[in-house]
Amino acid sequence: MAAVKEVLKSVLVSAPGKVILHGEHAVVYGKTAIATSVDLRCYLLLSPRATGDVKLILPDMQLTQTWPISELKKLLSQRIEGTDDDNLQILKRFCNVGENPSMKSLACLVLLYLLTKILHHKMATLTGIDILIYSQLPFGAGLGSSAAYSVCIAAGLLTCCGAITVNKKEANSDIKSHNLPEMMLEYIRERGEGVLLTDAVSSWGEYAKEDLELINKLSYEAETLVHGTPSGIDNSISVFGGAIKFKNGAFKQIDKMPSLTILLVYTKVLRNTKKMVARVRDLHDKYPSVISPLLTSIEEIVLKSETVLAKLASLSEGEPNNELYSTLQDLFTINHHLLNSIGVGHASLDKVHHMTSEIGLASKLTGAGGGGCAIALIPPGFSSSHLSEVKGRLEESGFESWETSIGGNGVRAHWIH
Amino acid sequence: MAAVKEVLKSVLVSAPGKVILHGEHAVVYGKTAIATSVDLRCYLLLSPRATGDVKLILPDMQLTQTWPISELKKLLSQRIEGTDDDNLQILKRFCNVGENPSMKSLACLVLLYLLTKILHHKMATLTGIDILIYSQLPFGAGLGSSAAYSVCIAAGLLTCCGAITVNKKEANSDIKSHNLPEMMLEYIRERGEGVLLTDAVSSWGEYAKEDLELINKLSYEAETLVHGTPSGIDNSISVFGGAIKFKNGAFKQIDKMPSLTILLVYTKVLRNTKKMVARVRDLHDKYPSVISPLLTSIEEIVLKSETVLAKLASLSEGEPNNELYSTLQDLFTINHHLLNSIGVGHASLDKVHHMTSEIGLASKLTGAGGGGCAIALIPPGFSSSHLSEVKGRLEESGFESWETSIGGNGVRAHWIH
Repeated sequence: MAAVKEVLKSVLVSAPGKVILHGEHAVVYGKTAIATSVDLRCYLLLSPRATGDVKLILPDMQLTQTWPISELKKLLSQRIEGTDDDNLQILKRFCNVGENPSMKSLACLVLLYLLTKILHHKMATLTGIDILIYSQLPFGAGLGSSAAYSVCIAAGLLTCCGAITVNKKEANSDIKSHNLPEMMLEYIRERGEGVLLTDAVSSWGEYAKEDLELINKLSYEAETLVHGTPSGIDNSISVFGGAIKFKNGAFKQIDKMPSLTILLVYTKVLRNTKKMVARVRDLHDKYPSVISPLLTSIEEIVLKSETVLAKLASLSEGEPNNELYSTLQDLFTINHHLLNSIGVGHASLDKVHHMTSEIGLASKLTGAGGGGCAIALIPPGFSSSHLSEVKGRLEESGFESWETSIGGNGVRAHWIH
Repeated sequence: MAAVKEVLKSVLVSAPGKVILHGEHAVVYGKTAIATSVDLRCYLLLSPRATGDVKLILPDMQLTQTWPISELKKLLSQRIEGTDDDNLQILKRFCNVGENPSMKSLACLVLLYLLTKILHHKMATLTGIDILIYSQLPFGAGLGSSAAYSVCIAAGLLTCCGAITVNKKEANSDIKSHNLPEMMLEYIRERGEGVLLTDAVSSWGEYAKEDLELINKLSYEAETLVHGTPSGIDNSISVFGGAIKFKNGAFKQIDKMPSLTILLVYTKVLRNTKKMVARVRDLHDKYPSVISPLLTSIEEIVLKSETVLAKLASLSEGEPNNELYSTLQDLFTINHHLLNSIGVGHASLDKVHHMTSEIGLASKLTGAGGGGCAIALIPPGFSSSHLSEVKGRLEESGFESWETSIGGNGVRAHWIH
């Protein structure tokens, strides 16, 4: 064990998901959109072990997969001769990734792609690793769960081998939102591995800018294995946190993004992004003079929101913010209905909209629409009893909801040993 | 009786209500809107009687009011000396119309205003009239019930005294929709006055253009007693039928308006037009760059609808119209959501929208919003079982619905004796 620990460190990292704040669909027509991090996180615990195996444990997918180090070494020896594309084909075959791959095989592919790439030069001394991943993000809900997964793996592997370093910070009030999920702790306790970490995550750390960029580059590569040609927004948001403004394929970080409390609601109605994009295209082509002004209006909502968010981020503690929140609420409501008018709404999303409206919360669908998720803005000092009540009612309707925040931290290391 | 009949004729007339097809609220900002007749009608049966009284019977309001002819003559003798405004004040006092008049007292005011104006020179020979009015239009639902009421009274009085004449037509297939409502027939039977008319309305007639204009002028005057400064759209639609395009206070009849079958749904949620107009104004002033494009889009919906309606009206029997109906449906759906986005929606209206959507019918709120009515377009050949089903479900939700048509006839005489 001592020899292994010199090579690799134990590490616990996490990365957030993303939501589209405003501008979904309009962005297809060259309008601006804003994506922001959402503090439902993917957590990764990486533990060097002298087992001779690499073991991936994904309780969310009921997946435990073990690969003998010897096999991975063989795989690497094959790869070294071929082109990048050849190497990828070898890896895909190894993970049973065919035409319509399962989520489990894609999860294995992403791990092994990043592991063989990042730990390439450490394979000779590698005696085994356990990798436990737990995600608070539902899969396939448009919340960037695959990007958060890739970011965690890239950050975890780069950190454990010392390729990047963590700027440790003492615990502060922020730490609360980074507590290790109870489900993950339980899982570790059950497996008798509680020695690896204490229940409370006692310190956390940031990465330097160039290290974040390396994590971003590698997680984007991993995302292409899952999504073909992703925009890169999901992994960027997961790595850097905050918010990103994007238009015509280009994007940049928004400087002043406050952290906002939201209720994220997952309708559990499967969305089909392609179908929704095609529906808007169809309406746009049939009624250009009707639909074009709506896309203009959506972009104006984006720009107005950006201004208001910057003002909110610049407020000193205690300065009144009611009016700014009120504006953000109005814009949520208007855009929800506009997204309905361009054909990407769904009865379940309107149900969420009405349920939250009844207690005075403005909400909108987020992402592709036609199902998927909605977000409701929770202004400061909002009645927690009203919130509990609506969460209960949403659950009764078969929806899942989380009180969380947007605009917060990107990838973080919580524990290194 | 014989002498009376030489003076006044018995007459049965009816006049339709109105709905806004598209453009509500946007019209306040100088955009075009379209109003159309809706074939829920107000029916008036006027019977000369030698009772010495004028008797108004309004079963809908549980109102039966009797005025001795002698009192009305006294009223007229007072009026003759004063100015128009003085005369109106005398009439208002006579009908107990104060600051916040009841609907009953306004109903009396409108009748007596038109009666004393139209029958002014016949008062000497008048021995009595019974006026029975039954309306299929709910009050205060934005369907122009007060205009239809005034139009019926003006047309009925002008016809009974021979001031205007009816071009009699033989009964044709159209007559079905002008059958006297069963409720009215029952009422007459109960009162033992079935001798006045047969159960089936056996002929109907149109008025000449200049006579319609006289009815329109008088009914507008009566509308000012109820609404202050009405736009004149409600009475014009009720008199001329079809559809009217209006913008910046000016309006003109649409030449080619087909009759379309619709489901009219009344949510029974009281609407407040002033509040709704103020809400749009508030949003418009706060977010002009967001709201202005939406009003532009609404006007484009109006213009596109007008083109499609003209095409539909020009089709020969049997020519395919699926695509035109499909466009009208799309425009209904888009505008429903746009009206939501400018803040005039209501949970009940969205409920109607979802219920009708589920069986494939496009619907939109109509009029001021925030409650009131919605209309769903029923394409030709639509499943009547689906329609019955949704009508049942709407009723279970506390809504009232009517399968009726828009764009049909204005005021009509059904029976003269």
